[in-house]
Amino acid sequence: MVPRYARPAMSAIWEPEARYRIWFEIEAHATTKLGELGVVPESAGKALWDWWATDPKIDVEAIDRIEAVTKHDVIAFLTWVAENVGEQARFMHQGMTSSDVLDTTLAVQLSRASDILLNDLDNLLTALEARAKEHKFTPTIGRSHGIHAEPVTFGLKLAQAYAEFDRCKARLEAARAEIATCAISGAVGTFANIDPSVEEYVAEKMGLTVEPVSTQVIPRDRHAMFFATLAVIAGSIERLAVEIRHLQRTEVLEAEEYFSPGQKGSSAMPHKRNPVLTENLTGQARMIRAYALPALENVALWHERDISHSSVERFIGPDATITLDFALARLTGVVEKLLVYPERMQANMDRMGGLIHSQRVLLALTQAGVSREDAYAIVQRNAMKVWESDGRLTLLDLLKQDPDVTAALSEQQLEEKFDLEYHFKHVDTIFERVFG
Amino acid sequence: MVPRYARPAMSAIWEPEARYRIWFEIEAHATTKLGELGVVPESAGKALWDWWATDPKIDVEAIDRIEAVTKHDVIAFLTWVAENVGEQARFMHQGMTSSDVLDTTLAVQLSRASDILLNDLDNLLTALEARAKEHKFTPTIGRSHGIHAEPVTFGLKLAQAYAEFDRCKARLEAARAEIATCAISGAVGTFANIDPSVEEYVAEKMGLTVEPVSTQVIPRDRHAMFFATLAVIAGSIERLAVEIRHLQRTEVLEAEEYFSPGQKGSSAMPHKRNPVLTENLTGQARMIRAYALPALENVALWHERDISHSSVERFIGPDATITLDFALARLTGVVEKLLVYPERMQANMDRMGGLIHSQRVLLALTQAGVSREDAYAIVQRNAMKVWESDGRLTLLDLLKQDPDVTAALSEQQLEEKFDLEYHFKHVDTIFERVFG
Amino acid sequence: MVPRYARPAMSAIWEPEARYRIWFEIEAHATTKLGELGVVPESAGKALWDWWATDPKIDVEAIDRIEAVTKHDVIAFLTWVAENVGEQARFMHQGMTSSDVLDTTLAVQLSRASDILLNDLDNLLTALEARAKEHKFTPTIGRSHGIHAEPVTFGLKLAQAYAEFDRCKARLEAARAEIATCAISGAVGTFANIDPSVEEYVAEKMGLTVEPVSTQVIPRDRHAMFFATLAVIAGSIERLAVEIRHLQRTEVLEAEEYFSPGQKGSSAMPHKRNPVLTENLTGQARMIRAYALPALENVALWHERDISHSSVERFIGPDATITLDFALARLTGVVEKLLVYPERMQANMDRMGGLIHSQRVLLALTQAGVSREDAYAIVQRNAMKVWESDGRLTLLDLLKQDPDVTAALSEQQLEEKFDLEYHFKHVDTIFERVFG
Amino acid sequence: MVPRYARPAMSAIWEPEARYRIWFEIEAHATTKLGELGVVPESAGKALWDWWATDPKIDVEAIDRIEAVTKHDVIAFLTWVAENVGEQARFMHQGMTSSDVLDTTLAVQLSRASDILLNDLDNLLTALEARAKEHKFTPTIGRSHGIHAEPVTFGLKLAQAYAEFDRCKARLEAARAEIATCAISGAVGTFANIDPSVEEYVAEKMGLTVEPVSTQVIPRDRHAMFFATLAVIAGSIERLAVEIRHLQRTEVLEAEEYFSPGQKGSSAMPHKRNPVLTENLTGQARMIRAYALPALENVALWHERDISHSSVERFIGPDATITLDFALARLTGVVEKLLVYPERMQANMDRMGGLIHSQRVLLALTQAGVSREDAYAIVQRNAMKVWESDGRLTLLDLLKQDPDVTAALSEQQLEEKFDLEYHFKHVDTIFERVFG
Repeated sequence: MVPRYARPAMSAIWEPEARYRIWFEIEAHATTKLGELGVVPESAGKALWDWWATDPKIDVEAIDRIEAVTKHDVIAFLTWVAENVGEQARFMHQGMTSSDVLDTTLAVQLSRASDILLNDLDNLLTALEARAKEHKFTPTIGRSHGIHAEPVTFGLKLAQAYAEFDRCKARLEAARAEIATCAISGAVGTFANIDPSVEEYVAEKMGLTVEPVSTQVIPRDRHAMFFATLAVIAGSIERLAVEIRHLQRTEVLEAEEYFSPGQKGSSAMPHKRNPVLTENLTGQARMIRAYALPALENVALWHERDISHSSVERFIGPDATITLDFALARLTGVVEKLLVYPERMQANMDRMGGLIHSQRVLLALTQAGVSREDAYAIVQRNAMKVWESDGRLTLLDLLKQDPDVTAALSEQQLEEKFDLEYHFKHVDTIFERVFG
Repeated sequence: MVPRYARPAMSAIWEPEARYRIWFEIEAHATTKLGELGVVPESAGKALWDWWATDPKIDVEAIDRIEAVTKHDVIAFLTWVAENVGEQARFMHQGMTSSDVLDTTLAVQLSRASDILLNDLDNLLTALEARAKEHKFTPTIGRSHGIHAEPVTFGLKLAQAYAEFDRCKARLEAARAEIATCAISGAVGTFANIDPSVEEYVAEKMGLTVEPVSTQVIPRDRHAMFFATLAVIAGSIERLAVEIRHLQRTEVLEAEEYFSPGQKGSSAMPHKRNPVLTENLTGQARMIRAYALPALENVALWHERDISHSSVERFIGPDATITLDFALARLTGVVEKLLVYPERMQANMDRMGGLIHSQRVLLALTQAGVSREDAYAIVQRNAMKVWESDGRLTLLDLLKQDPDVTAALSEQQLEEKFDLEYHFKHVDTIFERVFG
Repeated sequence: MVPRYARPAMSAIWEPEARYRIWFEIEAHATTKLGELGVVPESAGKALWDWWATDPKIDVEAIDRIEAVTKHDVIAFLTWVAENVGEQARFMHQGMTSSDVLDTTLAVQLSRASDILLNDLDNLLTALEARAKEHKFTPTIGRSHGIHAEPVTFGLKLAQAYAEFDRCKARLEAARAEIATCAISGAVGTFANIDPSVEEYVAEKMGLTVEPVSTQVIPRDRHAMFFATLAVIAGSIERLAVEIRHLQRTEVLEAEEYFSPGQKGSSAMPHKRNPVLTENLTGQARMIRAYALPALENVALWHERDISHSSVERFIGPDATITLDFALARLTGVVEKLLVYPERMQANMDRMGGLIHSQRVLLALTQAGVSREDAYAIVQRNAMKVWESDGRLTLLDLLKQDPDVTAALSEQQLEEKFDLEYHFKHVDTIFERVFG
Repeated sequence: MVPRYARPAMSAIWEPEARYRIWFEIEAHATTKLGELGVVPESAGKALWDWWATDPKIDVEAIDRIEAVTKHDVIAFLTWVAENVGEQARFMHQGMTSSDVLDTTLAVQLSRASDILLNDLDNLLTALEARAKEHKFTPTIGRSHGIHAEPVTFGLKLAQAYAEFDRCKARLEAARAEIATCAISGAVGTFANIDPSVEEYVAEKMGLTVEPVSTQVIPRDRHAMFFATLAVIAGSIERLAVEIRHLQRTEVLEAEEYFSPGQKGSSAMPHKRNPVLTENLTGQARMIRAYALPALENVALWHERDISHSSVERFIGPDATITLDFALARLTGVVEKLLVYPERMQANMDRMGGLIHSQRVLLALTQAGVSREDAYAIVQRNAMKVWESDGRLTLLDLLKQDPDVTAALSEQQLEEKFDLEYHFKHVDTIFERVFG
């Protein structure tokens, strides 16, 4: 985790205090249920919740001091709770194993992290929708291979991004469901010393579902799927970031990351406004992708469990969620405030002198009876002149002066072929598909 | 693709002939719809389908010869079709771009590959369920960190694998839906020269859904999610493979890959039966995981498209699906024919001399009124003797001779604590959860 | 391996016949040495080499037929050789284990593959050096963040690429040395049944060094380092490919992949020349990087060996080397024939109206006694006018008309600050560093 | 970075104070050289170094406060230095660009990190050598595929690890040389405003070499190679960690991570000593490998530089080096204190009843004139009985009672074939190769 790429709400999930609070809730709910079952006195659960109702401060340092002696984090925590709650606390954790608490806690943390990320995605979608609709009919050149192809609208570009992040949201919802399970099943998952109804009770209270079969640990294919999903979302972040970086290139300059009026990029070079936010996002996407790998390698634990996954998760649990939260928020800000230059989009499109319409002319000529070979030769010779003029000549002007063209097409027919609107007649359809 | 790790049905999907067949269907359906719309003569579609009804052989070499001249695969194919169908064929591909055909074809190929993989998973699930139920109550030691912990059943191990691959199946179904989309939207996705209803028509005919917004290409976040999902499945394959490799170790030998009666492992060493299938699967899992990475990097194409994804997909499209198909089938065979040795499982469990029951004794002593400290010391001193005897002494025998124990617990009470069945009382519950 | 991305010489290394030829040489050299040691008759080695001198055809199908029976590739091969050589052949393989042959063969294959790749790198370096020197002083704008910064030369860009690939060559030489080792040490590497001098003899004959300590297999950290090195080279290929893709963008168009005079990109759009080769290289780089991952996971084999590495190497051995060979050759072709447009480079640079020289003016004003704050304000107000004119005004013209400037600097002093040559005074130094 | 997996000396390299100290040294050395060249007053460098000689405290918070205003880290630092040094400080940074300082600083940090890692490797090698020599002739079974094969010694296992980490050391030395370069070349690397001799001077003073051609930044193929090398080392760590985890399995138990006499694993199960350190190392190895990926993707920066690498390096610079340092130190501790159980090694080997010697008997019979087919049948029938007895019968006993055997071999000849020492006759040779 790099502090400058972290936001408080997400970071808080991974703080010791948050972890201890979840631990307590799991233990206290379990104790309540064990009381109901008559395994422990009903007073035990009550005592725990009464103390909790006083909103006690979690003394992380005190717990650390105990852990320094016991060398065991869960025992240290239970000891500290017992010091505060008293006698009744000794009924906690009956029949449970440390992993019951640790794995269920991770499930809660990742669920909460998912909720923040889902909210981030909602914000990004809102921003994309607003800007897409704002530029629904702002013409800009579509590019394949980085080369001018045919016209699109800037709104279509953003609608594509919206559809992509909408898919990311659905994926994240599925990934959240994957990891939101509760396991309270004892040392090797057999419920030998704890009734399955405790697991069911705690699951419900913590907003989780029951893990059908655990083996001391919740199986790590769930977490692999979760982090792989974050990696896919990172790919989509990179795609939009790269698009913006391209648009901001000096020679293109169709859009720019926001720059406040007074802000100075480079001392004396007013054009030196660098797309540093989207470059930064590109790098962050690489990290979030990388975190999926060790999660995939974590799946093949030995027998009922080995603890190799644990060190991995201490890294990627916080690092992947905190970085993705930051990245989504940063991208949302970039989209919301993106400076868009429609005139420049038009100017770039015009630099081709109308060549982007050549195919329509070709088609019109053949429909007017010119053979395909002749039509091709006619268009080609004019197109070549336009191209070689480097923007000084336009295709329409040249065609109007070409007798082979005017013999087949009227001036009006010709001009119609250069109509940008022709390309946008289905933008409504696409927007309807994307935004409903 | 490595031929020895390929099965015919999956490989066939990626053969040129299969691809050309899909191309034809897409083109012919589009022509039919264009006929309905009046853009081309209705006779055009009919001519194509009439020819197709004769079940013509796809002459891959002829198409290759044409491509050697045209340097364009789609045009070569269209030319070859025209040579066979005649005049009417020239109405094919009207308003379409090559990517419309190529990307929709990839969607069909990946969908069909998914269907094979889903069937593979069904077979694996069937095998796992049968063996799990067969060994539902076969006792075996549960191991955490590779160290004996508490008893489980071999059926529980397989039930866990079943639950895991059942999740894999759900994930693959979701991944299949991700990539089963159709794009017929023209050079930059605006439908400038083709009506969106053609896309809808072809999608329905080919068993796909409509891509809401494409940009010459179908967005690659879909494919990234698909290959990431295959990578997660590979992780689960590795987990089960590693489990079996562990069980087959000379010192453990609780299960073995099938070995036919007459088969000879090593010339004179009858114990030398190597778990080569599951080792092989471990390596294949590494490959399938690796293929997810370039798929994730493919997402960030430049602007409306660049073609960098294409070379990647020529590799991973076949390689990931063919290898996963092979791996799932191989794993299914291993599970179906796995030699299971319950006596050895029992013998391994017994080597601990009953130490795996020490915690239950400890609890019984405290419940019988012995202080926790004393109870711990009593159990510990006997346990240590058992451990040091390396399997010659048993905990039960020693406890029966320890007056501090017999003072608190009757022989019968003591023996009850060594009851394996105690651990299996919730196996039914877990099986119910997993198999319903 | 994708056939269209494969070249014959590299592919041949991975063909069965090539593998069998290496097998034979290893076995025959070992037999010769065993003869010298008196372990087998000296006539055995002689018989093998005499047969080999007849340049026998390797009958791959015959060997396959035998393997179908024996289920063991090395035994099948030995049997086929025995069928051809006769009685003496039965002394082959004495005291050896299959892995001795297989791992040493892989070492020979990877060494030969490295030799081809080193030659590829030499060709690429030759091309880069020629083009770098050709454009040593061709001015072009340097860009940070995609935004115009200060002038460089096109030769400097290529000199950088040269230096980078020269490092790649040194890395590959080191990687080649890593994997060029010979292990002939028996079932668990103890030389129990074969003298270490056989290993030394075969190593020398096959151009390898002796593996200091093997354990049936050559340790896989060597191969991990090898494939990781190929991954780094892929990164450098991607860098140069991305540079060219950027330069070919419609708005930039400072260079283009070669396009033969008669070649037609798009039917009527002469500007539609797509950088498909470098896009393709970008995708191939992703694959070569991905192959390093399973190689890294192969290191941790169990005990003296497990065979999980084998399936991985069947994929990545050919796939990584064949693809990298193809990519390096393709990149070399792109560099050799790259169309370079110096006028366009100049025109792009000029579009900024001289703003790229603003810092030098700023410095000159302060050196002429103007306070830093005033100097900044003076330059800034003129720069802003240039920027807002979108290329119609130039900074030099405006400064010449600004009395605050002319009070401090003469016209000649001012013009000197706009001298491009100023930026290139150390190009010789850099070229000297790179090309010596 | 996870605090519990961090050691102070390595962490300190990545603290702000350490970074600022390096920044100062780079700037001050550059100023000194600029003074020599007459570009700035010689007094400027002197003033800086005089202040530095007072060992001033780096006030990180003060610099942070300035950065909050300037939004630029290097400028904030320079401002703070100027506040302390006074007037002369304004000559600092003349002609330099921020990246000159930042990239050269990263080179110094990675070099220092490498020095710590090289020292870690030396410690690990020392531990491995000592334990290898201690157990040079401790017999233990060699295992292929997890199955007993033929005898090795425990010292050979450790000698293999020694040889592997010795290679890792050589690789790291090469990787250190890769990243230990200095770039002080200005905004696009042309030295337009700073003489190359400044770079040479600073490089020498900082213990670096000169970057032959930089482009504002040092090329990232260097860093890719560096982090890829760390990934390979992680693979070797995992290999040894997995070996120890295997040896500590309950059924194997030939070695254990150190457990202090009084330490208690599980309350009452004395066998419950988990290999948690090596499991933890396995997870850490996964992380270190993962960090290589974004480093590989960082290579292809756009044109002269984009800043996408920066966020990646903020993560992996500290995370990869700190984690590897911790892992190497932890592994060294594990090796130094590893509990080795030679009796158990012998007992495990004996469980096969001498089957591991069956091949030598087979060979002896054929050499004594028995046909290969008969010899095989004889050995096989006895071996099978041994195997089926599960350790109660031994091969030697049975062979002594088999008349077909005794007809061919004397008792003494037979016993010789079961001599373990036979397998160890070349251990000296191997040790000589490894330890010299």
